[in-house]
Amino acid sequence: MFTGMSLRLHYRPGTASMAPHAALAEIGVEYELVEVVRDDAGTIPADYLALNPSGRVPTLEDGALVVTESAAILLHLGDRYPDAHLVPDVGTAERTELYRSLLNQTNTLQPALMRVMYPERYGEAGVREAAVADAQEQVARIDGQLANRLWLVGTERTAADLFLFMLTRWGRHLDPPAWDRPNIRAHFVRTLALPGVGRMMDEQGLERPPFAVA
Amino acid sequence: MFTGMSLRLHYRPGTASMAPHAALAEIGVEYELVEVVRDDAGTIPADYLALNPSGRVPTLEDGALVVTESAAILLHLGDRYPDAHLVPDVGTAERTELYRSLLNQTNTLQPALMRVMYPERYGEAGVREAAVADAQEQVARIDGQLANRLWLVGTERTAADLFLFMLTRWGRHLDPPAWDRPNIRAHFVRTLALPGVGRMMDEQGLERPPFAVA
Repeated sequence: MFTGMSLRLHYRPGTASMAPHAALAEIGVEYELVEVVRDDAGTIPADYLALNPSGRVPTLEDGALVVTESAAILLHLGDRYPDAHLVPDVGTAERTELYRSLLNQTNTLQPALMRVMYPERYGEAGVREAAVADAQEQVARIDGQLANRLWLVGTERTAADLFLFMLTRWGRHLDPPAWDRPNIRAHFVRTLALPGVGRMMDEQGLERPPFAVA
Repeated sequence: MFTGMSLRLHYRPGTASMAPHAALAEIGVEYELVEVVRDDAGTIPADYLALNPSGRVPTLEDGALVVTESAAILLHLGDRYPDAHLVPDVGTAERTELYRSLLNQTNTLQPALMRVMYPERYGEAGVREAAVADAQEQVARIDGQLANRLWLVGTERTAADLFLFMLTRWGRHLDPPAWDRPNIRAHFVRTLALPGVGRMMDEQGLERPPFAVA
């Protein structure tokens, strides 16, 4: 069914585009990047809205197939390029662990960080404090999970690690920042060392934190 | 790898347990239900916390495998029982659509409804208003998506429909309630008519809305 000949990722630097972008680069397939730039009035280009009416990034065009939602793009790419081992095979316990890790991140830490970064979207002043407490609790939990393992699922890096890398970077808005937790910092540095992740950082023009600069 | 001989769902009526519960019943496999009951002081039983330290429901025990996150349990069960067609086969466009639909729901409408129902968890008074506006926008979008189709993905009911059924029910807290939208109401009634969904409603002791009582 995958008749598409081309992969095109619509992105904005540093957003939820990071994980799918890193996945493309980890796979090592050819892809095209299209930055979604608002005009001076903040308007999203009409051709992007035609593709994704919500205006949110990322969107992946895989031939004629349009895929939105960062984690859905990861699962799609994982299935499409099994040799890259971004998602474990269907029918294994690791596959189930991947679902659990990815859904847990999109369901707990990600929305908490969105509230930390954009409290004005969620009501009034108290939201940020509640969100910070919520996010720090999730960050502590994930730091604990990583105490005795290199990667979130199994013994290899998977899509779940690319997603966490992105959330860890967003967590620099916390005080202390997420990457000040020892195991999360080690995971961040380890993930940044993946060729595809380094390439994504360069292509999006994102700065590495001081502790991760060689 | 699936060595487990037994399926056990830990649930509380009306919560995010609904969709995985309905999936088990749609599959038609034998399962055991364990209600997670807080004591008078609101404390969650220690044996449940041992299984799922967050204390949240649902948790599925599939033999020795412990699965949390409502949508992750749906994907797990879909992969495990392919004959039930809860998730399309890997490598099809429908599979990608399922990821997109499920992740979109967990990422947009679900967190908005959580803020509508539990604004005290997210800060102060203004949160509920912002959440209601957000939720109504998502509800309108989904109602539009359902204008010319029976199910969210492809031509059969999938895990995405079981998830939406649950969120539609949660959306009764909106004014107007989510199921007052014509296409969402038709989808709700259609989904409720699935044998497994009816069974889940009965087993959780959940009332049907007046428009859906025969």
